[in-house]
Amino acid sequence: MAEVNIQFPDGTVKQFEKGVTVEEIAKSISISLAKKAVAGKFDGKLVGYHDALEQGGSIEIITKDSEDGLVVLWNTVAQILKHALHNMYPKMKFGESSATEHGFCLDTDNADGQISEDGFDKITAEMNKLIKQNIAIEKIMVPVNEALSMAEGDEYQTALINENAVDGQVEMYQQGDFKYLGGVQLPATGAVKVFQILSVAGAYWKGASSNPMLQRVYGTAFYKQKDLDVELERRKEAQERDHRVIGNKLDLFFVDPKVGAGLPYWMPKGATIRRTIERYIIDKEVADGYQHVYTPVLMNLNAYKQSGHWDHYHDDMFPPMDMGDGEFLELRPMNCPSHIQIYKHHKRSYRELPLRIAEIGMMHRYEKSGALSGLQRVREMELNDGHTFVALDQIQDEFAKILRLIMDVYKDFNITDYSFRLSYRDPKNTEKYFDDDEMWEKSQKMLKGAMDDLGLEYYEAEGEAAFYGPKLDIQTKTALGTEETMSTIQLDFLLPERFDLKYTGTDGEEHRPIMIHRGVVGTMERFTAYLTEIYKGAFPTWLAPEQVAIIPVKNDLHLDYAKELASKLVAHNIRIKMDDRNEKMGYKIRQAQVNKIPYTLVVGDNEKANGTVTVRKYGEDEQTTMAFDEFVTMINHDIETYSRED
Amino acid sequence: MAEVNIQFPDGTVKQFEKGVTVEEIAKSISISLAKKAVAGKFDGKLVGYHDALEQGGSIEIITKDSEDGLVVLWNTVAQILKHALHNMYPKMKFGESSATEHGFCLDTDNADGQISEDGFDKITAEMNKLIKQNIAIEKIMVPVNEALSMAEGDEYQTALINENAVDGQVEMYQQGDFKYLGGVQLPATGAVKVFQILSVAGAYWKGASSNPMLQRVYGTAFYKQKDLDVELERRKEAQERDHRVIGNKLDLFFVDPKVGAGLPYWMPKGATIRRTIERYIIDKEVADGYQHVYTPVLMNLNAYKQSGHWDHYHDDMFPPMDMGDGEFLELRPMNCPSHIQIYKHHKRSYRELPLRIAEIGMMHRYEKSGALSGLQRVREMELNDGHTFVALDQIQDEFAKILRLIMDVYKDFNITDYSFRLSYRDPKNTEKYFDDDEMWEKSQKMLKGAMDDLGLEYYEAEGEAAFYGPKLDIQTKTALGTEETMSTIQLDFLLPERFDLKYTGTDGEEHRPIMIHRGVVGTMERFTAYLTEIYKGAFPTWLAPEQVAIIPVKNDLHLDYAKELASKLVAHNIRIKMDDRNEKMGYKIRQAQVNKIPYTLVVGDNEKANGTVTVRKYGEDEQTTMAFDEFVTMINHDIETYSRED
Repeated sequence: MAEVNIQFPDGTVKQFEKGVTVEEIAKSISISLAKKAVAGKFDGKLVGYHDALEQGGSIEIITKDSEDGLVVLWNTVAQILKHALHNMYPKMKFGESSATEHGFCLDTDNADGQISEDGFDKITAEMNKLIKQNIAIEKIMVPVNEALSMAEGDEYQTALINENAVDGQVEMYQQGDFKYLGGVQLPATGAVKVFQILSVAGAYWKGASSNPMLQRVYGTAFYKQKDLDVELERRKEAQERDHRVIGNKLDLFFVDPKVGAGLPYWMPKGATIRRTIERYIIDKEVADGYQHVYTPVLMNLNAYKQSGHWDHYHDDMFPPMDMGDGEFLELRPMNCPSHIQIYKHHKRSYRELPLRIAEIGMMHRYEKSGALSGLQRVREMELNDGHTFVALDQIQDEFAKILRLIMDVYKDFNITDYSFRLSYRDPKNTEKYFDDDEMWEKSQKMLKGAMDDLGLEYYEAEGEAAFYGPKLDIQTKTALGTEETMSTIQLDFLLPERFDLKYTGTDGEEHRPIMIHRGVVGTMERFTAYLTEIYKGAFPTWLAPEQVAIIPVKNDLHLDYAKELASKLVAHNIRIKMDDRNEKMGYKIRQAQVNKIPYTLVVGDNEKANGTVTVRKYGEDEQTTMAFDEFVTMINHDIETYSRED
Repeated sequence: MAEVNIQFPDGTVKQFEKGVTVEEIAKSISISLAKKAVAGKFDGKLVGYHDALEQGGSIEIITKDSEDGLVVLWNTVAQILKHALHNMYPKMKFGESSATEHGFCLDTDNADGQISEDGFDKITAEMNKLIKQNIAIEKIMVPVNEALSMAEGDEYQTALINENAVDGQVEMYQQGDFKYLGGVQLPATGAVKVFQILSVAGAYWKGASSNPMLQRVYGTAFYKQKDLDVELERRKEAQERDHRVIGNKLDLFFVDPKVGAGLPYWMPKGATIRRTIERYIIDKEVADGYQHVYTPVLMNLNAYKQSGHWDHYHDDMFPPMDMGDGEFLELRPMNCPSHIQIYKHHKRSYRELPLRIAEIGMMHRYEKSGALSGLQRVREMELNDGHTFVALDQIQDEFAKILRLIMDVYKDFNITDYSFRLSYRDPKNTEKYFDDDEMWEKSQKMLKGAMDDLGLEYYEAEGEAAFYGPKLDIQTKTALGTEETMSTIQLDFLLPERFDLKYTGTDGEEHRPIMIHRGVVGTMERFTAYLTEIYKGAFPTWLAPEQVAIIPVKNDLHLDYAKELASKLVAHNIRIKMDDRNEKMGYKIRQAQVNKIPYTLVVGDNEKANGTVTVRKYGEDEQTTMAFDEFVTMINHDIETYSRED
């Protein structure tokens, strides 16, 4: 028989018979490896444990403790779920199924009624039955017409079979009598040890809002119970911190795909938070020498052709609008070309540099509807954007100034866990970058110099710079520990060239400025999502949409006094929530906690008689009675210091 | 010969011979009328003085002292200008010409060089020559091919001749040898008494930015010298107050049709004014019980189909964007459907009404490029918008509350000259309006009741209401005396119906709320244009982008002291401009006046020694020396009271 060369990750090559399986290869190495193995990765592509390898290539044995091992498990459990549902509801139709970041999902369409959480136990029992039977799972090739006749009446499977057909055949899997489309599977249902059906939610077929709404069932599975326990704990924590969940509970915002996917509506409370952030950042930047502007969200498409965005970024841009007369307008995906218009509106002199233009600039990016998520991934966003135009020798000072601003702002928001990453060009491939060695050398040295002067630790990433200049990324951690780029300081040698920017130097000659793109807190949407998660919705007093809840013990006796306090607080620009509903006091206090209002004031006979208030801080059980003026001083101090923990 | 019946404005009818001219009709009435007459209006359409009337109809004699008399004069002078230019530059091509609001204009394209103001005298002399010759002007019908051969080489005239051709002929006029297209003309060039060429500016052929740029020559003319004098004075005043001129001089904003017609860029100083207005109005509204929100500028087109905007307002809307999957997104032309989403996001109770939703909402309207003007008429705008949802019996109180807010805001901006206009449905044609008699009757009575309670004078306009509800318009006067609707309070019975809005009443049943659309200061763009004109660019201190100019007498001696003052003022949130340029003091003081900065502080030896400042207010020659703290108190008072004249 013919032989094939199989290469292992360590580089060694062994010969096997053509048609060898992953199982056989694993066993040839060691029995202990074969025990842990569940699949293979052949030339970078997942293959089944029993798949025959018909040609040579590189192999990696996929074991239970690897990420790919989980993918194969999740693929399999998704199909056991499908099998179980098919047994329970023979008329059920099935959309797409797949492994997700933390488990799997399966789209279903049940003519005989919806799937609900109440039914999870029955589904689980049916799945366990299939697992207990330890049914072998085999990959089979099925003629397309045969596959289509099996799928008769299920328009989704029909479409998927047609999409997957190759040369009149389609690759499927078989569990006993049940045949289905699916990703790489485990060898038998019995290989599944622990799994859990988690939730069910609506999802459009193929993710398009014009398509029918299906029910998407989510689940997860692991090889060990303790891994499932960790995941369920993570999910609980994620759920509690999920800005979409908190945003809904606290009534901060909503998104309705029927009126526009990825287009958030900021409800009054969310809008108050955003407005406070916007005013804070604008005032901070103006005090730091920025000139804030307003520029239009629409621009002639030609400007984005000139900037290069249309060529390189086209897929992320909205469709241009034909205005007639050969004019095409484009919703801007970035603010840089707009700020360049501001720069170019006057002849500039060295005296004006560094020139700092900033804006809370609205932008639009075309994200796939499946990628959209709450305020985190949206199609319309407002970026805390700024562009500084500098001479080459000003880079170091300006870079340091921007960095100080960023760290200052982080401090006010109590963001303490962040790190720095400097990206340089690849010194071995300088021809891949904007062609000006002096500019690169000097500017990279100045960025590094500024970091050192500020005594900051940072990671240097050679070859990670963009074509047009080096940059600094500031990485923060989300509430769930994922790293995220919060701020960037990006040098740009290219756009000044493309838009022919100039300034008159001390020598009276024209020179080319360098642009620095910088974002401090990113978009209002993503930043608010981030803050919601790190604060778990308990916003510090200065940001809280309602800062003080006032609860009169009895409306008929204490409401007047409560109103007197309310109007005094409002005169201090404090946002109050008067709870004069005819509800029990205990209930109203709990409601103030549920709404995460920083201060709750309870006022009754004593308070009214003595001009005091009884104050309870959010999250504390203890309450203190103090003079009203003392409370005003306290909350004002809290607001003025941004409730910082220092 | 056949006779025709000619009816006069007073209703009397006379018989004339077919082919009678306006001149003959005028003479039949009186010689004095014939002396003043220059043209006619036949069945509502301008006709020449010598045009033969071939059928019966109504006639109005157009005299020199009427508006139409001026139109005929301006038509004529535009063509004398064309004739003169043709004599001077035989190769010159001509675009469109027309009477304008205050004169006329003519588009030209001169292969042999541009027209400049320097050349106006020569052009005027040539025109005067033609006027002195008193050349008869005759209307002629020219075969199209003949007209086209006369226009050979002039692509603009060629296009215009083709557009105007009827049955192979085109109506033209003839002055001696010169034949041209034109509006109704005077009988002879000698009828022109006084005229003036005013200016020349670029204008796109047919107003489309994709077309060639022509030179548009502007002029005006009158029958009497004193009318020209009045017009020149008005123009001077208009020029001085023109927000585009001031906006350019003070560097407030610019519009560049190359990157987007009707899409203003707010330069830092203009942006400061706008930001101050936005913050002021938001804070005012929040204090008045409004809940400010942010809603997306894009919405699914279906929402505008549901609202009826797409059917009725389609021409003013931007082209929809095809997002794939059958989703079409539309840049919103109004914010109402967005605020309706906010309302509908929760089940509403009577306890929440009146529910007041407000936003500085960005909208887009497709205006013809020729109609665009500075910040006055734009394609992208931010509206100070608000919608109150009320029960029927709450209309009167809510209406009065909105009106008090509006008047309060006007007072802060020192807007004192305004009037009210209540629009009702037509009581004789109630079937033309939203079908609910009780709602109309009650609400109109409540609007009137509120006006009377507030002791306001108002004009009642029956039949002027929109289909969907009665309204109040508040009319202000622009700096040049034109009436303009600044604010509107519009009741709407229809949209709540279309979007099926509900609230639960005290009876536990579902009821339909009424919407009140209200704008206080309109769009940021138009309001800023309006303020710029009424203030002549001298913004009151609280709005001024630069509030204090600080001028050290000698930099080497007094700059430190000046900087010390500056940082104290900045700490008081006062916007300062430090003028430490190496220029003469007198020059710097004049510059502060040119930039209309409310306060100029000059500091020298005396001031430094005594801790004083020498203060000069904008527009005053007098200057006062006072303690610095006294100045701070003074300017703070000025800002806090909105520099109101009360």
